[in-house]
Amino acid sequence: MSAANVKVLCFDVFGTVTDWYSSVTQEGQKISEKTGISVPWGEFVKKWRIEGYQKVLGEISSGKMDIIPTETIHRNMLEILLDEYSVTGLSNSEIDNFNRVWNRLGVWDDVAEGLKKLKENYSILPFSNGDFRCLLDLSRHNQLPWDGIISADFFKKVKPDPTIYHDAANLLQLPPEEIMMVACHARDLQGAKNAGFKTAYVNRPLEYGPGARPEEKTVPFDYEVDDFIELAEVLRTST
Amino acid sequence: MSAANVKVLCFDVFGTVTDWYSSVTQEGQKISEKTGISVPWGEFVKKWRIEGYQKVLGEISSGKMDIIPTETIHRNMLEILLDEYSVTGLSNSEIDNFNRVWNRLGVWDDVAEGLKKLKENYSILPFSNGDFRCLLDLSRHNQLPWDGIISADFFKKVKPDPTIYHDAANLLQLPPEEIMMVACHARDLQGAKNAGFKTAYVNRPLEYGPGARPEEKTVPFDYEVDDFIELAEVLRTST
Repeated sequence: MSAANVKVLCFDVFGTVTDWYSSVTQEGQKISEKTGISVPWGEFVKKWRIEGYQKVLGEISSGKMDIIPTETIHRNMLEILLDEYSVTGLSNSEIDNFNRVWNRLGVWDDVAEGLKKLKENYSILPFSNGDFRCLLDLSRHNQLPWDGIISADFFKKVKPDPTIYHDAANLLQLPPEEIMMVACHARDLQGAKNAGFKTAYVNRPLEYGPGARPEEKTVPFDYEVDDFIELAEVLRTST
Repeated sequence: MSAANVKVLCFDVFGTVTDWYSSVTQEGQKISEKTGISVPWGEFVKKWRIEGYQKVLGEISSGKMDIIPTETIHRNMLEILLDEYSVTGLSNSEIDNFNRVWNRLGVWDDVAEGLKKLKENYSILPFSNGDFRCLLDLSRHNQLPWDGIISADFFKKVKPDPTIYHDAANLLQLPPEEIMMVACHARDLQGAKNAGFKTAYVNRPLEYGPGARPEEKTVPFDYEVDDFIELAEVLRTST
């Protein structure tokens, strides 16, 4: 009965809603087909995500740097990686277009049906470190039925900053226990739980591609599910 | 051809999307039926809007007071008006429920079809002085297909503060000329125009109820239409 009062579900986006590994790898392969340059795209993409985006977010989160647009974070790392993997001959607009793959990522198979079911009983919103523009693009690209968007750039900080969950609750004008964070990342859920949110962990074993080690969960969350359709069912039967 | 580059349509909500006069008047009449207390609800509702909400927004806009939740603004004035019109005998939860009529206003007849058509070619977002919570409630109540929400409380200021339009453009990461403000209020559009937005004026002669004087437009805007369906058609044929 722990979710009986929940009014709003907030979703992590990169990994939880979107399958960034497949989407970006596929776009990389198109570049290889066009240029004839062979690249281990799975490795490239994971570096782009982990050493590019997540490392910069860590610096923003720890106060070492100010927040900058998501597209700029991606673009800065892309130039480093194209150089490292000797991908040459792309025009500036081709690089821009590749960079913006992060604004047109595909979603996991269960997302469309799952969100539709969840929306019947809850307000559903992304709550992501991706900025407003990136989330708006992803939403339109995938026709996601969000009721609104909560992006970290509203607050000039990023998850899992311990205060950002309170900022989101204040924006929603709800007590934290009426909000559930839905994510495939334990650190994000831990931050939400510390702020008093309900939590739902979604298993996304393929987030980092086939064969990657699933994330280790160190603490229990209110729910653990394999996809959004199961989440809708579990919430329906447990509240 | 002036809207050829427009990517995003931002909508004023109270008056432009929602028919607040009818919705609030009807709820008032229900109170009269229940309590037997006769009230000139049209007058009551206009005072609530003009002397309550709009006057407080003016004080926020001019820096005389900090921004407060939309629901609080409405509630403060409601207590004054209930006293002024001698509406007694309501419980606290009945007063709360009446106050929250502003979170469940109905929309004009053209809105559902018009927004659906406009969404085919543009990102559509409310850009309102109503706060995030109020806009989220209105959106769910009317199943509005917004791509996101831009509310004044993101920026701790209100329209037509000359800087708030730039804040919205920055959030969208778009040059102002790629954004169109859609509103039935000349002051709002004038602020948007000054910031470089495209502008569409929507005639809503019944905003303040039957027989009210339509707003005087002092400057020309890019488009003038009678409803959102006409706006979709005009944009389709002119760009």
